[in-house]
Amino acid sequence: MSDTTDAQQACFEAGIKFGSLYHQFAGTPVSPESTRSLETAIEEAIENQPYCESVAVEILDDRVADAIDHDEGYAELTGSLMEVEMRIDYEGTAVRTRMAMEDGYPRMKLVAVED
Amino acid sequence: MSDTTDAQQACFEAGIKFGSLYHQFAGTPVSPESTRSLETAIEEAIENQPYCESVAVEILDDRVADAIDHDEGYAELTGSLMEVEMRIDYEGTAVRTRMAMEDGYPRMKLVAVED
Amino acid sequence: MSDTTDAQQACFEAGIKFGSLYHQFAGTPVSPESTRSLETAIEEAIENQPYCESVAVEILDDRVADAIDHDEGYAELTGSLMEVEMRIDYEGTAVRTRMAMEDGYPRMKLVAVED
Amino acid sequence: MSDTTDAQQACFEAGIKFGSLYHQFAGTPVSPESTRSLETAIEEAIENQPYCESVAVEILDDRVADAIDHDEGYAELTGSLMEVEMRIDYEGTAVRTRMAMEDGYPRMKLVAVED
Repeated sequence: MSDTTDAQQACFEAGIKFGSLYHQFAGTPVSPESTRSLETAIEEAIENQPYCESVAVEILDDRVADAIDHDEGYAELTGSLMEVEMRIDYEGTAVRTRMAMEDGYPRMKLVAVED
Repeated sequence: MSDTTDAQQACFEAGIKFGSLYHQFAGTPVSPESTRSLETAIEEAIENQPYCESVAVEILDDRVADAIDHDEGYAELTGSLMEVEMRIDYEGTAVRTRMAMEDGYPRMKLVAVED
Repeated sequence: MSDTTDAQQACFEAGIKFGSLYHQFAGTPVSPESTRSLETAIEEAIENQPYCESVAVEILDDRVADAIDHDEGYAELTGSLMEVEMRIDYEGTAVRTRMAMEDGYPRMKLVAVED
Repeated sequence: MSDTTDAQQACFEAGIKFGSLYHQFAGTPVSPESTRSLETAIEEAIENQPYCESVAVEILDDRVADAIDHDEGYAELTGSLMEVEMRIDYEGTAVRTRMAMEDGYPRMKLVAVED
């Protein structure tokens, strides 16, 4: 085991934000009428966390509409209904991350690290 | 055990909304800069649920500010930081509920039932 | 608006427990190897809440297995993967509730109220 | 921006698990009678996630007892009531992480990375 680098710490912090975002808000009742307010709340909530410079959430209205059970009128937020981009800054290291569908499954990806 | 009444069903539905609201959003990172967006998102999310006519959430900026750990810059949403009022309508029965501090503890209350 | 009865209060409390259970634990990573521990934890957690006499949770291993994406090896807990029964006692009024699939959708039901 | 290394990916995955664990289970009703089942469920749930080799959770009974409001009989799980250790393995890189109190605040720490 070696000492950790700032870049590794930055990636760890980026992961924390992604796991937080997903498991805090997954399950939230959502309909096409409430997507914009939920996007904004998720962005501003996670941006409160340390080292989190920016969060962009897009909840996909058409996928939400498709996911809605006819009788209920809402879906529960899950990874396949949204796309997320985040930028973390830790002690001068910038990290970009992204969640989007890949092979039919939502994936959280470490996109780039700027040492 | 007897059959249930519409008023009892309405109270059950009202309770579901309160438990949902609380356990979906408790733990959300919050600061005085993000209270308004979180209030709106909570209201619109829970209003998606069946029989839920209106939800009003007030997150108390001064209590959020007091709850913030100096180094972190945010608090986690919990019952003592917000006040909630809800109105449920189930088959013609209206129910009003409320959460607010009482004896230093957040309490979910069934305020009134209109048969 | 009239005063509320003990039976209505009991139904409100029963609803709170159901909404709490669902929105606290929905989204939890689950596989057939972890269903038993999750059932027990959900039961004991919700039984801590006031007026909650008993909670029985059955997470359906076969449905969990069917829900698992091949590459990931786990599913996220949702209403269609479990059955729940609860008994609430409020000031001498007993309430029984149940969640199970109905018309392809998980429904929380007020089963009986004993005044 | 440069390509990412396996060590950086491993740290990102480690962070995801920590954020997931925290925001999935924070807010769970807990008492000294339910700590053991909750520990086990958290461990087995998060171990379902990819690259997660082991999770050890200790919920501190004495802190839970201190956090309980007298009338309610339970507390809500939060970072100050538990200690967590995790080991992630990503493509041959091992990462150890830890959450414990530091200066009165729960901190998620990247402890070591073995390239």
